[in-house]
Amino acid sequence: MIAIIRPDVEQQKIDSLCDWLRSRGLGVHVAVGEFQTIVGLIGDTTALDIGLLEGLDIVERVQRISEPFKSANRKFHPDDTVIEVGGVKLGGGNFAMIAGPCSVENRNQILQVARSVKESGAGFLRGGAFKPRTSPYDFQGLAAEGIDLLLEAKRETGMPIVTEIMSAHHLPLFEHVDVIQVGARNIQNFELLKELGHIDKPILLKRGIAGTLKELLMSAEYVMAGGNEKIILCERGIRSYETATRNTLDLSAVPVLHELSHLPVVVDPSHATGVARLVRPMALAAAAAGADGLMIEVHNDPRNALCDGAQSLTPEEFADVARRVREIRSIIHD
Amino acid sequence: MIAIIRPDVEQQKIDSLCDWLRSRGLGVHVAVGEFQTIVGLIGDTTALDIGLLEGLDIVERVQRISEPFKSANRKFHPDDTVIEVGGVKLGGGNFAMIAGPCSVENRNQILQVARSVKESGAGFLRGGAFKPRTSPYDFQGLAAEGIDLLLEAKRETGMPIVTEIMSAHHLPLFEHVDVIQVGARNIQNFELLKELGHIDKPILLKRGIAGTLKELLMSAEYVMAGGNEKIILCERGIRSYETATRNTLDLSAVPVLHELSHLPVVVDPSHATGVARLVRPMALAAAAAGADGLMIEVHNDPRNALCDGAQSLTPEEFADVARRVREIRSIIHD
Amino acid sequence: MIAIIRPDVEQQKIDSLCDWLRSRGLGVHVAVGEFQTIVGLIGDTTALDIGLLEGLDIVERVQRISEPFKSANRKFHPDDTVIEVGGVKLGGGNFAMIAGPCSVENRNQILQVARSVKESGAGFLRGGAFKPRTSPYDFQGLAAEGIDLLLEAKRETGMPIVTEIMSAHHLPLFEHVDVIQVGARNIQNFELLKELGHIDKPILLKRGIAGTLKELLMSAEYVMAGGNEKIILCERGIRSYETATRNTLDLSAVPVLHELSHLPVVVDPSHATGVARLVRPMALAAAAAGADGLMIEVHNDPRNALCDGAQSLTPEEFADVARRVREIRSIIHD
Amino acid sequence: MIAIIRPDVEQQKIDSLCDWLRSRGLGVHVAVGEFQTIVGLIGDTTALDIGLLEGLDIVERVQRISEPFKSANRKFHPDDTVIEVGGVKLGGGNFAMIAGPCSVENRNQILQVARSVKESGAGFLRGGAFKPRTSPYDFQGLAAEGIDLLLEAKRETGMPIVTEIMSAHHLPLFEHVDVIQVGARNIQNFELLKELGHIDKPILLKRGIAGTLKELLMSAEYVMAGGNEKIILCERGIRSYETATRNTLDLSAVPVLHELSHLPVVVDPSHATGVARLVRPMALAAAAAGADGLMIEVHNDPRNALCDGAQSLTPEEFADVARRVREIRSIIHD
Repeated sequence: MIAIIRPDVEQQKIDSLCDWLRSRGLGVHVAVGEFQTIVGLIGDTTALDIGLLEGLDIVERVQRISEPFKSANRKFHPDDTVIEVGGVKLGGGNFAMIAGPCSVENRNQILQVARSVKESGAGFLRGGAFKPRTSPYDFQGLAAEGIDLLLEAKRETGMPIVTEIMSAHHLPLFEHVDVIQVGARNIQNFELLKELGHIDKPILLKRGIAGTLKELLMSAEYVMAGGNEKIILCERGIRSYETATRNTLDLSAVPVLHELSHLPVVVDPSHATGVARLVRPMALAAAAAGADGLMIEVHNDPRNALCDGAQSLTPEEFADVARRVREIRSIIHD
Repeated sequence: MIAIIRPDVEQQKIDSLCDWLRSRGLGVHVAVGEFQTIVGLIGDTTALDIGLLEGLDIVERVQRISEPFKSANRKFHPDDTVIEVGGVKLGGGNFAMIAGPCSVENRNQILQVARSVKESGAGFLRGGAFKPRTSPYDFQGLAAEGIDLLLEAKRETGMPIVTEIMSAHHLPLFEHVDVIQVGARNIQNFELLKELGHIDKPILLKRGIAGTLKELLMSAEYVMAGGNEKIILCERGIRSYETATRNTLDLSAVPVLHELSHLPVVVDPSHATGVARLVRPMALAAAAAGADGLMIEVHNDPRNALCDGAQSLTPEEFADVARRVREIRSIIHD
Repeated sequence: MIAIIRPDVEQQKIDSLCDWLRSRGLGVHVAVGEFQTIVGLIGDTTALDIGLLEGLDIVERVQRISEPFKSANRKFHPDDTVIEVGGVKLGGGNFAMIAGPCSVENRNQILQVARSVKESGAGFLRGGAFKPRTSPYDFQGLAAEGIDLLLEAKRETGMPIVTEIMSAHHLPLFEHVDVIQVGARNIQNFELLKELGHIDKPILLKRGIAGTLKELLMSAEYVMAGGNEKIILCERGIRSYETATRNTLDLSAVPVLHELSHLPVVVDPSHATGVARLVRPMALAAAAAGADGLMIEVHNDPRNALCDGAQSLTPEEFADVARRVREIRSIIHD
Repeated sequence: MIAIIRPDVEQQKIDSLCDWLRSRGLGVHVAVGEFQTIVGLIGDTTALDIGLLEGLDIVERVQRISEPFKSANRKFHPDDTVIEVGGVKLGGGNFAMIAGPCSVENRNQILQVARSVKESGAGFLRGGAFKPRTSPYDFQGLAAEGIDLLLEAKRETGMPIVTEIMSAHHLPLFEHVDVIQVGARNIQNFELLKELGHIDKPILLKRGIAGTLKELLMSAEYVMAGGNEKIILCERGIRSYETATRNTLDLSAVPVLHELSHLPVVVDPSHATGVARLVRPMALAAAAAGADGLMIEVHNDPRNALCDGAQSLTPEEFADVARRVREIRSIIHD
């Protein structure tokens, strides 16, 4: 961390700042430039509040040099993390499709979709039991019943399941769930993240609606600090000024996250675009950008879906996308 | 709600759409334009999933005509909501300052700050006991002990207190808290909002980090749908591409929210700007824009604050701001 | 276009609005809903100022139903536009790579790069002669001399050339240039666009730094309204709050623009990301998303480039990208 | 400027970087931290391309320490710039209102508006003769005739006039114009800015549609580098994801620009909000935030205005705003 000192500050004030920093256990390094003086802080600055330093009269601004995340940082963990559940691997060269309906609606629906996506090569079954809806008047999911239906589909097809949690209260219901998803709206629900740090299951973390990549990694850090290092990161589109798509899918997140972190990165083109006919091109693009997996909504009857039917592929469309994705992966990795 | 039909769609398909909409209890009105046909939906469209309609092949796009919020909507509740706690009023022409430290740190600090801001005319004492921090390694607040210290300051000064909740788990600790705050990162933590709908205390809702005004009102709707109509809305800056300030304070939110809703609107210039020297001009601007209250961080010793000292005013600076704010209010309302 | 009337407006005022609209040559259609009345406008509303209608007391808001662009609109021109220059085609199933250095620096550099990218299969040579730089103290390009060097490279290799114009003043220098580029910063320089409408050369239009897709199409409309219909659209990243990359490459722009317009769409991953090591994954992703072409910076000696060396590929890296892009295209179109 | 070196880079490569930097005339200062090495560059780094340095393999990232603008920088010019035209002053404690219609429409309109705003205390008359419109089919302004009408209004009322230029071609028409405005869409039309650096008239620069404050100052730098130091900066709202207002008025720009620069700052609440009923609260807020002036659209007949009638105040509304603004200024400066 470096603090840039305002011009024309008396030397005595700079000395006093340095003394105070040293009293907090930090090494201090002063560089006097032509126009400005810079105070470099050496040591563990995670304990120092950046805002505090910025607030001092003599400080113009403060810049971090090293990233504030440790466990998720590739610098300290150069090898790719591989997530393995029920024989399916994701990360470190292993690619997996996570497919299924936005919401679990009934037994017939989830079984039908599960069978068809398995046949097309999906590794995981997804389905929402608890649904975060902007309006309190919208369908909120089948809750416990939805999870039971997902578990039935798991027993029948053998596919591990991924579903979203909305409150630590509900954790007992997730006992047999394979991967727990935290949605974009809860990605800075730090109390929930802390709880998930104490369990032994992979956690899929969706980037915030307008979250930075660093914030996503800090949310991973919250879980990892509790001891659970099985994290899957998910790019799902960010909020921008552009209204032509629901969100702006930021595919450069894939290579950037791979540089910054050893954690696997999946992409959700369904929520990002909000429109089924954009899912195919964006799924292929995500694969070409190097994603470790894709999360795609598939519904056997999109027109009558209770939630987000607009963005669901039919099983046939999914099969086509899955095949082309496999081919693209062979090109980028040859 | 209206659905704009793609050009060159066969009449039969449009008829089939209309039948289906009528089967869901909606009135239907078809207008044939020069280039396009529009299907208008009459009746309660809150039960209809907009995404579903958008997903149909023959539909180009769907536009809402009426707002999806009801209880918070000024159209149905023309009179201003007034929040009254412990003799202090906010809203409907009543202005109040909410002042205090970012975090409660110790007995001496909170009592000193409480006395000084009361003397300067603040109506509410604020202070963080549970702190949402981006990093798991940052100070997380004094928790229950912090609330006890706030209650002690309340007993001594008579000021009602405002403090943030981060999990419905902690609700029992908030029994004697006067106003419960939901922070920007939890504003779409719908499980928490639902719980707060069942208690009888004012809830202060902060706009999301990149939240729209409509989303803020929908979050209010979540609480109100549970029966608790005592809501205070808070503008605290939004995320934009500009990095010169921590957030971009959107003061037009004040008159816009006043148009859309009957709920009172306060502004937090401290978190928005992140820098103490910008708090004064933005506080005065917020008052001039018509805010019903201001939420300002005040610390007796900003340099040694454990959290966000950078954005705290000293008690003397706060007294000066409070005086000028009162004068500005007399000008805009004469 | 529809105007949504505020609730509780007297009928007489609505009638008066309708009369006024009819006096401007528009058909009017009034639909009375449960809560609100909607006035639909039928006919050519391009002549009506939307802002004016929105400003009326009785109008709550106005929504466009049909897009304000005509010549660029696929609805009126269903067939893909194909741009053909010097035997190279772009659009309508024809894919082309546009490659070359950010700035033309000297004879040796531009000839070396031209030969190598041609060998790798590039269709067009790009190179900046006039450079829009944020700082007046940065290198501003070789101007006329740069264009001469590009023309020399064209004569030697036979590749058509693409270069940026910054002022209509400079048009005489562009006489032998094959494709004229308008940069992101000039995309709403309407005086320049009007001038380009009167010449007979393809114009490559870059999306604005924070431009919407509709604005890009309206800028195309400015050129096309003058009679020049040879437009290439270019996605080059948009400004968002995320600072991990220079811009946020919005690849969903490719399929969305293909839906809205018949014009070809190319993607520039070099400017979007600003970092050479992100160019490969984003170039492959853009091809997978269905782009009609790619615009990639290539430099024979990136470390000593005068401008944006950071984002240039070496000729060898470009050859590798070009080969994989061809393979990806065969997959998405099989 | 500092360059942060990637971890585990061999010392020899760092030495080679340092040698190369020294060969470009810079002083170099290497600081070895616990995890990373930082290379500090001392001297005039404006000539060094930041992108180039960022592109090197061994460099993780580069951070500027000092601002890239010089002439506009308060550090080198601590005293406020005061713009004086025709006896009216703006900046350095002098406040001025700039009022008038969006477009000049006819003789009667501009004279009526000019007389009424002068009576209410406006210092400058504004009016558009050349109008940058997103659509080529919208009204484009009266051009030369509009300027003639403005000059007639100037002769009659004695008010200096402000009007927008869209191309350096038109400069001869601006000979008797007092202040030349550059609009948001041309603020990075560097060729135009260079031309304006060679004339002797105040230039009012509007912040870009999604422009940063640093970019606005760099655009000022373009004009000032040519010798013309009479610059007025204008905040006019920025593009964000929020659609409740046309733009998001960023009032913190006022105190931030005052810190960074000595140039006067005016605020345009009319374009920012796009709606007349939001102009009053935002104008008062801008005055409270410390603006040196306001730019407000006033029309004698907003309903029939040819352009942006929606955001124009009537002369009576303007008179009320002007009076309250004066009172607010007396409070913030007492």
